[in-house]
Amino acid sequence: MNSFGQKFRITLFGESHGEGLGVVIDGIPAGIPLSESDFEADLARRRSSGKPGTTPRKEADQPQILSGIFEGKTTGAPLCVTFRNENTRSTDYRNLIDHPRPSHSDWVAAMKYNHCNDYRGGGHFSGRVTLGMVVAGAVAKKILPDVSFQTTLIEIGGEKNPECFETIIEEAVRACDSVGGIVECRAKGLPAGIGEPFFDSVESVASHLIFSVPAVKGVEFGSGFTAARMRGSEHNDPIIDARGTTATNHAGGINGGISNGNEIVLRAAVKPTASIAREQQTFNFASGQIEPLVIKGRHDACIALRAAVVIEAALAIALADLYLIGK
Amino acid sequence: MNSFGQKFRITLFGESHGEGLGVVIDGIPAGIPLSESDFEADLARRRSSGKPGTTPRKEADQPQILSGIFEGKTTGAPLCVTFRNENTRSTDYRNLIDHPRPSHSDWVAAMKYNHCNDYRGGGHFSGRVTLGMVVAGAVAKKILPDVSFQTTLIEIGGEKNPECFETIIEEAVRACDSVGGIVECRAKGLPAGIGEPFFDSVESVASHLIFSVPAVKGVEFGSGFTAARMRGSEHNDPIIDARGTTATNHAGGINGGISNGNEIVLRAAVKPTASIAREQQTFNFASGQIEPLVIKGRHDACIALRAAVVIEAALAIALADLYLIGK
Amino acid sequence: MNSFGQKFRITLFGESHGEGLGVVIDGIPAGIPLSESDFEADLARRRSSGKPGTTPRKEADQPQILSGIFEGKTTGAPLCVTFRNENTRSTDYRNLIDHPRPSHSDWVAAMKYNHCNDYRGGGHFSGRVTLGMVVAGAVAKKILPDVSFQTTLIEIGGEKNPECFETIIEEAVRACDSVGGIVECRAKGLPAGIGEPFFDSVESVASHLIFSVPAVKGVEFGSGFTAARMRGSEHNDPIIDARGTTATNHAGGINGGISNGNEIVLRAAVKPTASIAREQQTFNFASGQIEPLVIKGRHDACIALRAAVVIEAALAIALADLYLIGK
Amino acid sequence: MNSFGQKFRITLFGESHGEGLGVVIDGIPAGIPLSESDFEADLARRRSSGKPGTTPRKEADQPQILSGIFEGKTTGAPLCVTFRNENTRSTDYRNLIDHPRPSHSDWVAAMKYNHCNDYRGGGHFSGRVTLGMVVAGAVAKKILPDVSFQTTLIEIGGEKNPECFETIIEEAVRACDSVGGIVECRAKGLPAGIGEPFFDSVESVASHLIFSVPAVKGVEFGSGFTAARMRGSEHNDPIIDARGTTATNHAGGINGGISNGNEIVLRAAVKPTASIAREQQTFNFASGQIEPLVIKGRHDACIALRAAVVIEAALAIALADLYLIGK
Repeated sequence: MNSFGQKFRITLFGESHGEGLGVVIDGIPAGIPLSESDFEADLARRRSSGKPGTTPRKEADQPQILSGIFEGKTTGAPLCVTFRNENTRSTDYRNLIDHPRPSHSDWVAAMKYNHCNDYRGGGHFSGRVTLGMVVAGAVAKKILPDVSFQTTLIEIGGEKNPECFETIIEEAVRACDSVGGIVECRAKGLPAGIGEPFFDSVESVASHLIFSVPAVKGVEFGSGFTAARMRGSEHNDPIIDARGTTATNHAGGINGGISNGNEIVLRAAVKPTASIAREQQTFNFASGQIEPLVIKGRHDACIALRAAVVIEAALAIALADLYLIGK
Repeated sequence: MNSFGQKFRITLFGESHGEGLGVVIDGIPAGIPLSESDFEADLARRRSSGKPGTTPRKEADQPQILSGIFEGKTTGAPLCVTFRNENTRSTDYRNLIDHPRPSHSDWVAAMKYNHCNDYRGGGHFSGRVTLGMVVAGAVAKKILPDVSFQTTLIEIGGEKNPECFETIIEEAVRACDSVGGIVECRAKGLPAGIGEPFFDSVESVASHLIFSVPAVKGVEFGSGFTAARMRGSEHNDPIIDARGTTATNHAGGINGGISNGNEIVLRAAVKPTASIAREQQTFNFASGQIEPLVIKGRHDACIALRAAVVIEAALAIALADLYLIGK
Repeated sequence: MNSFGQKFRITLFGESHGEGLGVVIDGIPAGIPLSESDFEADLARRRSSGKPGTTPRKEADQPQILSGIFEGKTTGAPLCVTFRNENTRSTDYRNLIDHPRPSHSDWVAAMKYNHCNDYRGGGHFSGRVTLGMVVAGAVAKKILPDVSFQTTLIEIGGEKNPECFETIIEEAVRACDSVGGIVECRAKGLPAGIGEPFFDSVESVASHLIFSVPAVKGVEFGSGFTAARMRGSEHNDPIIDARGTTATNHAGGINGGISNGNEIVLRAAVKPTASIAREQQTFNFASGQIEPLVIKGRHDACIALRAAVVIEAALAIALADLYLIGK
Repeated sequence: MNSFGQKFRITLFGESHGEGLGVVIDGIPAGIPLSESDFEADLARRRSSGKPGTTPRKEADQPQILSGIFEGKTTGAPLCVTFRNENTRSTDYRNLIDHPRPSHSDWVAAMKYNHCNDYRGGGHFSGRVTLGMVVAGAVAKKILPDVSFQTTLIEIGGEKNPECFETIIEEAVRACDSVGGIVECRAKGLPAGIGEPFFDSVESVASHLIFSVPAVKGVEFGSGFTAARMRGSEHNDPIIDARGTTATNHAGGINGGISNGNEIVLRAAVKPTASIAREQQTFNFASGQIEPLVIKGRHDACIALRAAVVIEAALAIALADLYLIGK
């Protein structure tokens, strides 16, 4: 449900247009210096920058720590961090009850919850709920001080050259459309031996969290789908020293589900934002007809831009949990 | 660890070359007719066929039900199914302690368990442990009588034409090498509304289980990585009737992590078998030198052939669990 | 840790003297009418009444719903309810770092968390954290509309006659001392068949939660410890009709860990409040000597008075979770 | 359900009169010497001794390790231990379908599982399933080499003098009746700091497991129910040295749910065996009448005798899990 993790356990709550949202993080070791300002760098990466491809909706996204900190350090008790919602335009969403947006959660949420779900801005399905994951990711990184994370958008709208990304996005915006992208995360410095057979392989736990990030439709580790096109003699990573360093890293730092001490490498496919300004033909449940739908509201033309730090957070959370379990 | 699932919970145990292995399945509704013969069809799909690309090691793979059945039906109590190991050649594996196989679990398992792991045939990391998953998958399908599963190898060694698969594999065998492949699973008939926000999306739970299957390095749903190269206007699936049918199915039957009533579609990338007959240069921890390694034992040149039914089982287990949770 | 439950899952956070505290409740079915006022009756029962035996510290205990409600009804998404801390006198607790209070969590918490725990008012170990349990209990009761709960203090300071309770407590207050008590909870209307073998018996799940309530040191069901002194022929509850009604109810409504449709009956032993005004001789870790300790602050002479509704809440939470699992 | 534990996780399966039963234990640290003979001492304590008060049904109770051991030591992979059922007289139980035994699981199990449960000998509700707990307890003790367990029957049929126990039981047997008893467990040597707030207090986790043991109806720690009759000044345990030793141990070694380094002390109330040879009047669901029932089969007149080691095992399992979590 809305909790994940064995020893580093996070619980998300909140909606896009309700009072607020946040996260409870349990299992943080005591004695780690922590304050709201520690979340700022990652929250800024997630924030709408106002540039093309990101929503003009701006929120201060001020985290407030409600519990778990004493004299500037974690106490071992659960950390609760909340965000208030402001600047919401709830009236934008009324008409979506009868006329749900294609490829959105609108219709499935209404089915699942007998039309009691908070449909405004996607409610609890909103990408805004990932604010709590970013906070948890920042805490996870503090638990893994020797691990450095590096996250890059390696592809937008099928284009691999970063110099063209802005153009691609601007074209999409002009076309009242959206584009997808591919995010690559690398984590260096994780010791060998992290991950638990059979079901809590590094890939299993990381993908579980990453597929929870809205819009992610694919996850691969190391050579991933390309591995399926290689021969064993090409793909195998020979060990070259007593620390287990491998000559190549097609495995993405993971053998048998366990970290091998080399860099963890994964990629996530982020679909194009479902909310597009362009008119779409889709079923209206009130009229019983396929009818044109124009989505109002403010949206990101390329959600992959803002999802990148969330995917990194998901990886950090997975690694912190497995690290604490394996200790 | 070795358990997975909330309401349909499976626990795997056993090693490749020990006494035996098996699975405990908890949460099966009472009253489902079940006997050992119900596992046979899927076990046969997993079994080495003796054809090119599969290991010459043959096992009867006779499942024995130890508990949970009374008068031919499930009782509501845990089902335990075991398999005995026979036809094992343990001496094949002695030299791998010092000279671990590239891209295998040998070295990480030794690290993680202080050299106490059963290294024979990969021990608990062996693909043989997936016998229990196949059994659990067969039971899961009984819980989902209206869902039909269809699984296809859509690519082997980069080749998409099934008529060429045998040639591709034979070439690999001749070259003392191995090839990877891509498995596609489709599940038709799942009702809308299955899957739990935020962390137990259909994608999250299915990928968690599928990445536990040895050799899987990528998982994607619907258009997956291709979605990242599409525009929203192409990718969005317009609804066309009151049952939620969509004109296209780029989402793979899942919106916001919840099933939408359309066909569930996923693909998994299976790497080439790490055990190849060809000599490899890799580190010998005894000598402290990179030295040639020749892997003895009997192996599959294309493990994707046998992994297909295991990936299907993983999907079935995920859907059965989420179905029982959502009821 | 700080989460409990499979389908009705609660997560507590917060400290006695920090910013605030609260609870996240996941798994609430959608469509249940709910507002802050629904918590008031049970919060009032928990509140210090100002009468003898309860602390003079008074808090408004105003719950605020942060998420999970839309148009006055539950949405199926997690409910987060918070309370702000006010009226705290943190300076009262400084000297307890070196000179921990006997039979309190002071010393074990310092050990466990390397002296990083928030020691003020017991921090996260404070009975104040049970505010979240009371809220969760009120929600649990809404999930079980056909179950009626009745909770009574059946014994205070060894006295069974309720007319003498006030006198007993006043005597303890005058003696700068405290008294314990026994709380009895009854739940009528639970259908037969609730509870899950082997480990999630009604007794197991209920006792797990009730022993989490600070000061509880014993739990018994039905005849409980008295059952150990009976013969089978006296203790057995013969069934007298087709609905499973039993002539007696020595089992407390539970056979084999499963509800049998008769009234659930349990008793919990609440120890005397550890914080007493009377001087105590106990070890001072700074001086290395046994020294007199006088506990300042404001405390309850009979915490059983206020614990009663928390124990009832614990039972309601257990039954709601098992009820949703068993459905 | 049938699994318990976070880091030391046990899964029970099997029935009294089926093929067999057993346990899977996950999370055992690698490298612990272990063989079937390590279970013998505790299995012998659980075994029917043939003395008054224990069933004449004798089983060899031969454990077989199926997985998790290599070269005489644990591997870090799950340990599966099974027992075959022999010497079962299933025909004894046929008539109980219509005419369920008072205070047994017969009727609730039939309700819960729509009459598909294995009713023979209580099926999965049988005390025989605790064989797996005894095995898990023996392993748990190996994880806690510094903790010594001592378990005593302190009361039988209301009698506290052990010299009278045999007489009490013989009288019950002669009267075709049964008696209950009280079991006390003590665990010495557990370090301070074990147990997790808020819900995984030592009391919570231990009581959860102990109440899973059939026939247990009450659990108390330290002074338990007697604490409710004491004043704080009597009950409080002053600390007397820098290691946290307390002058008294009314807390049973637990403050705020956390071990304080003093001896863990608990008592469990075991009800009189429900199966008595004496005729009972109870409802017959076939005839719709209250009718006399005579229970055939072989039963223990004082199940507390054999439950003692199971309760000790439950405590050991709880402490091992919390110990591994807290590390």
